[in-house]
Amino acid sequence: MENTPERTRTITWDDPLPTASAGRAMAGMDYLQALIDGKMPGPPIMYTLGFSLTTVAEGRATFTSEPAEYHYNPIASVHGGLAAALLDSAMGCAIHTTLAAGVGYTTLELHINFIRPLTAATGQVFCHGEVIHAGRTMATAQGKLVDAAGKLYAHGTTTCMIFRPE
Amino acid sequence: MENTPERTRTITWDDPLPTASAGRAMAGMDYLQALIDGKMPGPPIMYTLGFSLTTVAEGRATFTSEPAEYHYNPIASVHGGLAAALLDSAMGCAIHTTLAAGVGYTTLELHINFIRPLTAATGQVFCHGEVIHAGRTMATAQGKLVDAAGKLYAHGTTTCMIFRPE
Amino acid sequence: MENTPERTRTITWDDPLPTASAGRAMAGMDYLQALIDGKMPGPPIMYTLGFSLTTVAEGRATFTSEPAEYHYNPIASVHGGLAAALLDSAMGCAIHTTLAAGVGYTTLELHINFIRPLTAATGQVFCHGEVIHAGRTMATAQGKLVDAAGKLYAHGTTTCMIFRPE
Amino acid sequence: MENTPERTRTITWDDPLPTASAGRAMAGMDYLQALIDGKMPGPPIMYTLGFSLTTVAEGRATFTSEPAEYHYNPIASVHGGLAAALLDSAMGCAIHTTLAAGVGYTTLELHINFIRPLTAATGQVFCHGEVIHAGRTMATAQGKLVDAAGKLYAHGTTTCMIFRPE
Repeated sequence: MENTPERTRTITWDDPLPTASAGRAMAGMDYLQALIDGKMPGPPIMYTLGFSLTTVAEGRATFTSEPAEYHYNPIASVHGGLAAALLDSAMGCAIHTTLAAGVGYTTLELHINFIRPLTAATGQVFCHGEVIHAGRTMATAQGKLVDAAGKLYAHGTTTCMIFRPE
Repeated sequence: MENTPERTRTITWDDPLPTASAGRAMAGMDYLQALIDGKMPGPPIMYTLGFSLTTVAEGRATFTSEPAEYHYNPIASVHGGLAAALLDSAMGCAIHTTLAAGVGYTTLELHINFIRPLTAATGQVFCHGEVIHAGRTMATAQGKLVDAAGKLYAHGTTTCMIFRPE
Repeated sequence: MENTPERTRTITWDDPLPTASAGRAMAGMDYLQALIDGKMPGPPIMYTLGFSLTTVAEGRATFTSEPAEYHYNPIASVHGGLAAALLDSAMGCAIHTTLAAGVGYTTLELHINFIRPLTAATGQVFCHGEVIHAGRTMATAQGKLVDAAGKLYAHGTTTCMIFRPE
Repeated sequence: MENTPERTRTITWDDPLPTASAGRAMAGMDYLQALIDGKMPGPPIMYTLGFSLTTVAEGRATFTSEPAEYHYNPIASVHGGLAAALLDSAMGCAIHTTLAAGVGYTTLELHINFIRPLTAATGQVFCHGEVIHAGRTMATAQGKLVDAAGKLYAHGTTTCMIFRPE
């Protein structure tokens, strides 16, 4: 089978290390807002998977994406990895908004419920992450993936470990 | 910052519908083996995220990938979405190997534990999925993501609903 | 070590089969309200673990318990099984409220996050379950376990399979 | 409905604080073996829910229980809280076996898959916990709940945080 021109996609990205390095010296909220404002290049995964961070607030973050054929799995709907990546991002960044400069975090676990399939006909989707508990050494968050009409496609929770400088 | 030529990636893929349609008429094992043998084009997500299915056996499936800079998140390691996509694929396909022609499945939930970060220095990784329980209406599976030396990077479980023709 | 009289607990319960049998012929909401109203005996586990159902509404259910020494684990706080049992109950019953007479359900998976330990000093706790998605063959719910001041001790999600008569 | 004598159960337990306090000064393996050997009283929850620790080995722990009517839920099978408590115990203790004296742990999250219902006719069940990853600040484990013939009733995973003295 021939590839039609529409079945080609070229992405470019920037060296992620300067952004990551700058981020470590910034409060989470300032860092994420700088990404939204385009003051620093977004991370490569956003170009690879086709999603972006749109808004942050204390304890909240929203990502958006446009499900497309390049996300499809072998059973002709969007691969679960897109919903997982969006929920992981939205919930992790929601936690990140609560962290002061110099405080790091890592995701220990991620739990996703898939409610209905995403397809190229779904249109733009929005993934809202929200902190449930922000503790000294551990934080949890929940997230929902919805379409423009608010219909639910997936939801999730996550547990992150927090690293505070001594 | 300028993009260097190395920071560009072009992917192409095939229409996923003919493959998906052919798949519905095949036993899971035959379908997945045909994908491995290149008799049908792989699904678009495999090109987008850079992973492939390497082996299947009854109740088992293995995927491989090469973590790279284009998978990076804002904190300069591979985004959790790659491990999630690999584990979702390996565990779902492990379940798919147990299904006869005409039997469908959908993933209800996916649970991932992240053990250590993947980076571009990790080298090739292997994601092994294995069925735990294959029932009439529900199946569960577990998976591990390891490097060439067997070091563990992530593990997970999944629950799928099985659809049998009346 | 001598057991003091306070370290003895005697429970009694009723045959659970008549209640379960009656329940199958009732809408979930009616059945759970009848349990709250004492029109049918509560299930044995409620006496064993010391908890009770207090309120139900469409898509919601609340349980209460008084953590005590008889719930303690080997590290001298309340065993995680109490929070798990309360969350499983509250989320399952929240889903049950949405089901018509003759429709059954079974819990496929349960996910619990433990936020802080329960002890005998915590006082009465309340476990609120709430439906996230009520579908034809599958439903999901979330739950929170809080004390009288609203402080969070654990939260969770669940996935249930729904069985509808043909 | 009258309670028959068989529908009464009296339990007694010991003050859990001395055991817990002794435990903090012992290696996990020594502590758990002392519990098995009856050198210290078991924790109250074991009497309340009717289960016991039978064997430990490096990275492994097995519990046993006899599902009975006093565990029943409103739909006349064993409440999910029993499987959750057994899996939480077996997986937590599997992790505990790897910890030196003075090192503590707490369970962050617990994930359970329910495969088939337990009833009073199931007979004795065995819950095997096994460490997946034992790290410096975090550990994960998996567990299975089976009957005497090895038939699977539930399985799970857990994530624990490890506290090491400075």
